[in-house]
Amino acid sequence: MNAPVRRLRADRVTLAHGGGGKAMRELIEDVFVSVFRPDGLEDQARLQAAALAEPGARLAFTTDGFVVDPVEFPGGDIGRIAVCGTVNDLVVGGARPLWLSAAFIIEEGCEVALLRRIAASMQAAAEEAGVAIVTGDTKVVGRGSADRVFVTTSGVGVIPAGRALAADRVRPGDVAIVNGVLGDHGAAILAARGDMALSTDVASDCQPLGALVEAVLAAAPGTRAARDATRGGLASALNEIAEAAGCGIVIDETALPLRTEVKGLCEILGLDPLYLANEGTLVLFAPEHEADAALAAMRSVPAGRDAVAIGRAVGDHPGRVVMQTVFGGRRIVDMLVGEQLPRIC
Amino acid sequence: MNAPVRRLRADRVTLAHGGGGKAMRELIEDVFVSVFRPDGLEDQARLQAAALAEPGARLAFTTDGFVVDPVEFPGGDIGRIAVCGTVNDLVVGGARPLWLSAAFIIEEGCEVALLRRIAASMQAAAEEAGVAIVTGDTKVVGRGSADRVFVTTSGVGVIPAGRALAADRVRPGDVAIVNGVLGDHGAAILAARGDMALSTDVASDCQPLGALVEAVLAAAPGTRAARDATRGGLASALNEIAEAAGCGIVIDETALPLRTEVKGLCEILGLDPLYLANEGTLVLFAPEHEADAALAAMRSVPAGRDAVAIGRAVGDHPGRVVMQTVFGGRRIVDMLVGEQLPRIC
Repeated sequence: MNAPVRRLRADRVTLAHGGGGKAMRELIEDVFVSVFRPDGLEDQARLQAAALAEPGARLAFTTDGFVVDPVEFPGGDIGRIAVCGTVNDLVVGGARPLWLSAAFIIEEGCEVALLRRIAASMQAAAEEAGVAIVTGDTKVVGRGSADRVFVTTSGVGVIPAGRALAADRVRPGDVAIVNGVLGDHGAAILAARGDMALSTDVASDCQPLGALVEAVLAAAPGTRAARDATRGGLASALNEIAEAAGCGIVIDETALPLRTEVKGLCEILGLDPLYLANEGTLVLFAPEHEADAALAAMRSVPAGRDAVAIGRAVGDHPGRVVMQTVFGGRRIVDMLVGEQLPRIC
Repeated sequence: MNAPVRRLRADRVTLAHGGGGKAMRELIEDVFVSVFRPDGLEDQARLQAAALAEPGARLAFTTDGFVVDPVEFPGGDIGRIAVCGTVNDLVVGGARPLWLSAAFIIEEGCEVALLRRIAASMQAAAEEAGVAIVTGDTKVVGRGSADRVFVTTSGVGVIPAGRALAADRVRPGDVAIVNGVLGDHGAAILAARGDMALSTDVASDCQPLGALVEAVLAAAPGTRAARDATRGGLASALNEIAEAAGCGIVIDETALPLRTEVKGLCEILGLDPLYLANEGTLVLFAPEHEADAALAAMRSVPAGRDAVAIGRAVGDHPGRVVMQTVFGGRRIVDMLVGEQLPRIC
């Protein structure tokens, strides 16, 4: 790029900022490129990674759209969640995340200051996760055709040779471990919407999990699978694993890590914390002989301080997740049916 | 995946289809996965390509959001444009496109039949372009928070060793060539909106350009740069190249390929066809001694049948595009200022 970065003078986004001309270039260069600092301004990023050329290495590729409402909330914003969510989709498959793309669909009238905060938040989260935002796009739609801003991130990473984290590798006897308390993201969004007149100090758990998974794989290389428990919560992640592996899963209600505030919120509103969304919480399955090593490795990194074993895979009831309740009974934990909370991420 | 594909019984999308639970799985599996047929249903695609491991090969990565209105129009739909647009962003950089991701933001109430048509159209375009749609995501927002459906695609490709198409490589004397008539996409969308009471047979030029660029690079390996003339039209693509290369560009108005209908439409509405969007039209710069070879190669493939040289790069007026008009005068062709037509792609 030879020319200096164009400055954007507008306070709010207009349709002209989506038109492919000068106004769009100002928006892109001043608000996004100046923060993300990609190499060059071609329509594509051109990237080299020695890790991709190693024998047996595979490329991991994932995408997620983000429509969270409100766009800013305790513990994060739509930008932080867009980076962490896509990074975590890569790392739960054993990939080392490298590069992200970011596409913005912006409603006419959206405040430029909000976009600047989102871009700064994305860049900070990307640095925290050790990835680069290398390419992007902006579109603008008229008032009422979107809600402020939607962000879609895609991610590319490398799965080193020999790594094979996958839900269908889970076997009866494997131990299920979560890295921290459940439901903080869902509770934080619920409270931030304000329509429940709830006041709580709970912040979203929104965080990248690459360091955590690397630590676990170093200490417990036989780890079978990991899944981040986002939309649909822990219950949906466990059901997906049970179905893919063709085994049953039993979890222990007394072992589930929950903040008192989140537990209280769920009791007041009749919500089940197993279905509350998380944005920095995963469940993984390690073979029994490596479970202690996996747990210790998780606890050695900040994102795994509160790690705890919550149950195990079993040969009974294939495809089903069952919870041992505090009262000594058992109940089936189904996938989420219907909608618990729209626009949670 | 062990379980059979879940069937979706709903006619319209509800908020539950975005909830992360059973309804979402039904929507994703029945409408998208059954058509795109990715390998496995993990949150990430895991991919191997020998071409990525070749010495000197680089990875190309790009993203684009699509908000075109109407979502279906003569010559294509939002799905076809989402595939072709991202494929073309890869190929104009000399990349061979391999894999796409697709993220859908869906408005509550959107017809499931529309989503099925879009998915089928995307798969057909992907096959035409020789790429696979390997991963995706769906989100649902309430009525009035989006407009039926937005699609964001990202693309990954390989740039073989030794290829270096880039705007800043253009040099004075290089010949500018376009592969076909200008403005069909913009004209087709304008007519399809119906609010101009215009009737025209013009269809969008929406098409993948991989075969065209491969043919050109085989015949004219010294080709400097290519740019698809999408939002902002040919004028904006040329201005970007002039600015990046630090040279001037002169184009000849009499050489510009335009359909009579598009010319007429522009005259009636006071639009400049140089700014009309295209979705299957590119401009490339070849060194003078390879220009005939590049032109012949373009004409040898269907997407280049109407290829024609339209001008050249010059040492004068660096960064500026100038048009020799039919009347023998000269006028500056600036970047698009403001907005010609919102939601063109």
